[in-house]
Amino acid sequence: MADFMFVLKNFLLVSLAMNMCLIWKINYDDEETLSSKWSSWGNLQQKFHFHGSCFNGEKNNGRVEEAQVSSKRTEILATTSYVASTVVPDGGESVVINLDHGDPTMYENFWKQKGEKTTVVTSGWQHISYFSDVKNVCWFLEPELVTAVTRLHKVVGNAVTEGRHMVVGTGSSQLYQAAIFALSPHNASTPMNVVSAAPFYSSYPLMTDYLKSGLHKWAGDAHKFNKEEPYIELITSPNNPDGSSRQDVVRGHKGILIHDLAYYWPQYTPILSPPPDYDIMLFTVSKSTGHAGSRIGWALVKDREVAKKMTTFIEINTIGVSKDSQIRAAKILQAVSDSCDNDDDDDESFFDYSYKLMEKRWKKIREAVDKTRLFSLPDFSPETCSFSGRTFGQLPAFAWLKCEGDVDDCESFLRKNKIYTRGGKHFGASMKYVRISMLCRDSEFEVFTERLPTIVS
Amino acid sequence: MADFMFVLKNFLLVSLAMNMCLIWKINYDDEETLSSKWSSWGNLQQKFHFHGSCFNGEKNNGRVEEAQVSSKRTEILATTSYVASTVVPDGGESVVINLDHGDPTMYENFWKQKGEKTTVVTSGWQHISYFSDVKNVCWFLEPELVTAVTRLHKVVGNAVTEGRHMVVGTGSSQLYQAAIFALSPHNASTPMNVVSAAPFYSSYPLMTDYLKSGLHKWAGDAHKFNKEEPYIELITSPNNPDGSSRQDVVRGHKGILIHDLAYYWPQYTPILSPPPDYDIMLFTVSKSTGHAGSRIGWALVKDREVAKKMTTFIEINTIGVSKDSQIRAAKILQAVSDSCDNDDDDDESFFDYSYKLMEKRWKKIREAVDKTRLFSLPDFSPETCSFSGRTFGQLPAFAWLKCEGDVDDCESFLRKNKIYTRGGKHFGASMKYVRISMLCRDSEFEVFTERLPTIVS
Repeated sequence: MADFMFVLKNFLLVSLAMNMCLIWKINYDDEETLSSKWSSWGNLQQKFHFHGSCFNGEKNNGRVEEAQVSSKRTEILATTSYVASTVVPDGGESVVINLDHGDPTMYENFWKQKGEKTTVVTSGWQHISYFSDVKNVCWFLEPELVTAVTRLHKVVGNAVTEGRHMVVGTGSSQLYQAAIFALSPHNASTPMNVVSAAPFYSSYPLMTDYLKSGLHKWAGDAHKFNKEEPYIELITSPNNPDGSSRQDVVRGHKGILIHDLAYYWPQYTPILSPPPDYDIMLFTVSKSTGHAGSRIGWALVKDREVAKKMTTFIEINTIGVSKDSQIRAAKILQAVSDSCDNDDDDDESFFDYSYKLMEKRWKKIREAVDKTRLFSLPDFSPETCSFSGRTFGQLPAFAWLKCEGDVDDCESFLRKNKIYTRGGKHFGASMKYVRISMLCRDSEFEVFTERLPTIVS
Repeated sequence: MADFMFVLKNFLLVSLAMNMCLIWKINYDDEETLSSKWSSWGNLQQKFHFHGSCFNGEKNNGRVEEAQVSSKRTEILATTSYVASTVVPDGGESVVINLDHGDPTMYENFWKQKGEKTTVVTSGWQHISYFSDVKNVCWFLEPELVTAVTRLHKVVGNAVTEGRHMVVGTGSSQLYQAAIFALSPHNASTPMNVVSAAPFYSSYPLMTDYLKSGLHKWAGDAHKFNKEEPYIELITSPNNPDGSSRQDVVRGHKGILIHDLAYYWPQYTPILSPPPDYDIMLFTVSKSTGHAGSRIGWALVKDREVAKKMTTFIEINTIGVSKDSQIRAAKILQAVSDSCDNDDDDDESFFDYSYKLMEKRWKKIREAVDKTRLFSLPDFSPETCSFSGRTFGQLPAFAWLKCEGDVDDCESFLRKNKIYTRGGKHFGASMKYVRISMLCRDSEFEVFTERLPTIVS
């Protein structure tokens, strides 16, 4: 009887939560395009920052942005009815589709299905101290997170964890900054070169140079780096923005490598055996489970001294990492491992769900692109995934779309058609390319793939 | 019946949680001294970093630290019996008391009393997106936190919030770095000077210089700053480490001020009317409610452009701030406001509880110091608190203890007596001073105040 009452109470709680979520979604979706617009202006503003005249520059940008935001707001509010439902008025021409950011809202539906299995309950007295595990090189790392991360890597086979030092970060952005801090000599006369093969993740130059650091400087495309100086090469594999599998390209004797494996998960790419065994590997929950709002990333580091220096960076930068989010990430990652171990067919595993969704979306976007001669997408040769046993080509979190023919500025061209994307120049590539997020909500993706073939030059 | 079962279930849950906490405390307390030791080495290591030869320097320090840690570990494990209970073997001479850090574990007991009133429940699908409120300058700031912070400042009267822009940070450390980033011109030929009156918070020089930024540089004691150059002056009031009320001291026409009000709460100092109305005011839950592990701070900013640039810094540094911790901090801060509005005498308000505890501890430490001629403490003249109506002198979160007579290195002197503190040199002050945390657990504070009078030169 007692159990029944408890279960009933919990059921009511969950159903209430779901209603709240629906209301929230209605009020939220119509703001998302605006938000991304704003934040994408933010990126330009950031570029502006480290290029110099921040004050004048930003004031001007400020005015421009104000205008853009207010006009954008009117337009978006006019389409609330669409965003709140999947019914598109007038064929949806008036709707702005913002696919500039990789906001992983696509995963929301899976976690709603999971209900209370992934609910975290935190009492007011818990996690008060700065310290988590003082026997660990990373003293602010929660042991629960270590256990969950180690287990998931074993289940998936996408990283060697034995004998590695784990460092937790406020997302993998902070870990990238911690790594270049740790790897740059602090007594050198010139800053350490940091390179990555173009097209590279648009935030790397910003994160390297925004403080005009004397420790490290962005040295651009790794393919063009030919100095006889020490350098750090960043290898993002699968790559953001183009989804390709990557290896280091400079191959100099003075190089140190950082491997960003944020997208090395079986919904995006075949996992190959043996697991990666690099010196520094970066991961994040944002792209693995979709919990971007928790801001949790982790680094697997071979060298204890490097792990110590990365810990020191995070100690000075933010005095550790949210314990609340570490505990929550641990619960989510355990649930993902559980769902993989579970043989119950009614209880789909996280990676089955997300793989099928990515496969479906890539099929849709390729069909849309094939209907017109204006665009093209990269092709990926199939390989067999050691985790799922499936044989498939990459299903990247971003589509690296090329405008064929006379269109030289693909971003502006798509913007005229109310599709917001991030242009190739941000990634050190040609403006004929744009990066398109594949992780948005179903409703947005639907409208996007319906609109793409209707575009005429 | 159903309600009764639910209450019963919750009661069992809370009691179970408390037992877990007891077990955790037993395993935890005996590690804390070690951890702080380690982390205090970390601070030295950080100093080392931005002074130059990180690699050699750190390796050496590394070895030293290893030795210290392992010897310390043996010693601490030997005293586990003490730490697990409040029974002190052999009068506790063998126990290491570490008061180097301001880890606010003192508040744990209050939050345990509150039980489920402050429990946060988070479903797996919640807070997935990067975005919180795109209509806000700080697009990753949770509206619930804005409401809770604004209400608490109104209740306490310790800051003007009307017409201010709020920026949330991963603790106030990140907000300090965001503020100096925002206030330093990005096109200047030389870095912006950053000063604070000695004794100043030991982390300010590190946070300003660890990346050898071209934007800003630590320029030391504000009292000694006499350049005709632009500068940022940091005013910490009440001050860390000495608890004094502060105002700006340079008073140059090229100065920009940042007010760090982390300790401007009624358990530490009389709140004076009218509320502070400065351009940039920094606060944190770590020192107001004790939730250091959540890493949540907030800035109240007058100028929209400055708030935007601070937001940009946090966008590049960590792409926002943990939503899980923002939601939790909001709940905790609402509970503090509720406890102040509540007239129920059985339900003590947070500030009554914490004020009485601080008052008791300061009475105890002054009695201990009065028993010997070796030490002295600063005196504070009483003022009337506009929040509580009480008239009292400062009750700082740290005791700024001076070694009188021939002792020139107070930190080493106390260390010989197994009391770990942070020496004056870290704060730009004389080594005759040390900073001692007043926010530790009761058991540690008891042993500390018993040992102090027994020390002989």
